[in-house]
Amino acid sequence: MSAQTRFELYYWPSIQGRGEFVRLAFEDAGVRYLDVARLPRAKGGGEAAILKVLRGKPSARLPFAPPILKVGRLLIAQTANILQYLAPRLGLIGDTEAERFFAQQLQLTIADCVAEVHDTHHPVASSLRYQDQRREARRRSAHFITERMPKFLSYFEHLLGQPKKGRRHLVGSAFSYVDLSMYQLLSGLAYAFPRAFGRQATSIPGLLALRDAVANRPRIAAYLNSPRRIPFNEDGIFRHYPELDHGA
Amino acid sequence: MSAQTRFELYYWPSIQGRGEFVRLAFEDAGVRYLDVARLPRAKGGGEAAILKVLRGKPSARLPFAPPILKVGRLLIAQTANILQYLAPRLGLIGDTEAERFFAQQLQLTIADCVAEVHDTHHPVASSLRYQDQRREARRRSAHFITERMPKFLSYFEHLLGQPKKGRRHLVGSAFSYVDLSMYQLLSGLAYAFPRAFGRQATSIPGLLALRDAVANRPRIAAYLNSPRRIPFNEDGIFRHYPELDHGA
Repeated sequence: MSAQTRFELYYWPSIQGRGEFVRLAFEDAGVRYLDVARLPRAKGGGEAAILKVLRGKPSARLPFAPPILKVGRLLIAQTANILQYLAPRLGLIGDTEAERFFAQQLQLTIADCVAEVHDTHHPVASSLRYQDQRREARRRSAHFITERMPKFLSYFEHLLGQPKKGRRHLVGSAFSYVDLSMYQLLSGLAYAFPRAFGRQATSIPGLLALRDAVANRPRIAAYLNSPRRIPFNEDGIFRHYPELDHGA
Repeated sequence: MSAQTRFELYYWPSIQGRGEFVRLAFEDAGVRYLDVARLPRAKGGGEAAILKVLRGKPSARLPFAPPILKVGRLLIAQTANILQYLAPRLGLIGDTEAERFFAQQLQLTIADCVAEVHDTHHPVASSLRYQDQRREARRRSAHFITERMPKFLSYFEHLLGQPKKGRRHLVGSAFSYVDLSMYQLLSGLAYAFPRAFGRQATSIPGLLALRDAVANRPRIAAYLNSPRRIPFNEDGIFRHYPELDHGA
């Protein structure tokens, strides 16, 4: 990576959403990036900047949806794909092939969980408001909380091994982009479902230790306290609707 | 890839599902693979073979769910990740980095569409039967058919460019694993939603030509006519429930 490499991120400017997984990687690496849509419209920002990229010429390598990373003339979309491109360049993954494929498997499993979280509040259609699919959302959330969230979390906890002699990182012996994404997933679940997530807490000591360790990394701690970190809100993927935060 | 490389696929033996994207890659390449769970139980097959892999030792690189590829001691899960590993080894992707990241972006976009197709018949929970979420399925399917399917298909069609002078492959100038996966997606949509897909047909000439070209590749044509190709059925991801195949 040359010192002049210019990284541009295109993502919705008012939510963490899937773009946050990319933001965390840049922030932890201490590498400058331009969060284009968060610039004022007069400076080429706003949602118009994203739409301009999505409406390129036919036969170009167009993305389907943000987040989109632009590096020179290269456009890369799909969160896990962007992270796979960035991780070796930002020092966020080891060198072996086995490690890299395992990291990507975990990243894609996190992405699956994130998609399921989205559908807890939008089980019918993204184009409808939450209020217009509330009944279905209650039903889907109940299953997510009692079946899916525990299944995902116990899988990830299992990877960390036994408490006390367990591992501190999800991939290999070193910190990686997957640990950053796990921080984001755990934080999002705790925001959206504080009661249900709280009930899980005693069974995931390794994951909670990992989450706290990430939050205390100096650059991440500084980022979380900065205005660059958009607060969780009810336009994003992780939404707190108390009526969805029930148990069985 | 050495001549002795032994590829083992672990996937549910009675459905196409996500495993089919991997099967198509092996079949098109003419490379032998062992579809482990389709062996008789007495020979180490059946669903028990999959569960054995999923219940390995803690701290190992365990997968969350099938499909799983085993190559020697390496386990790789997540469909797109498996294909990314296999594609260069099977001659199903070009050499440039730009091509590879774009291919993977498309593969992940196909995966997103496949997940949405699954949720047309299971919008509440995978653990419930279709019959127990039929009302929600009707509502979700109506949105999928009128909003999401056209959005995905028009995006992919757009990549192929103008009719007549358009491109024949989704990535670069050569055939790739993404074309195989697109064949599977289009075939699945046509099976699940014959009426809705039929209404789309005139707007996606490039994709339909691509689908037919893939079906006519000699090894794929032989595979589709063999008992190795499991028929579409109502246990898989693409299910034909006539009551979900409506328009707006």
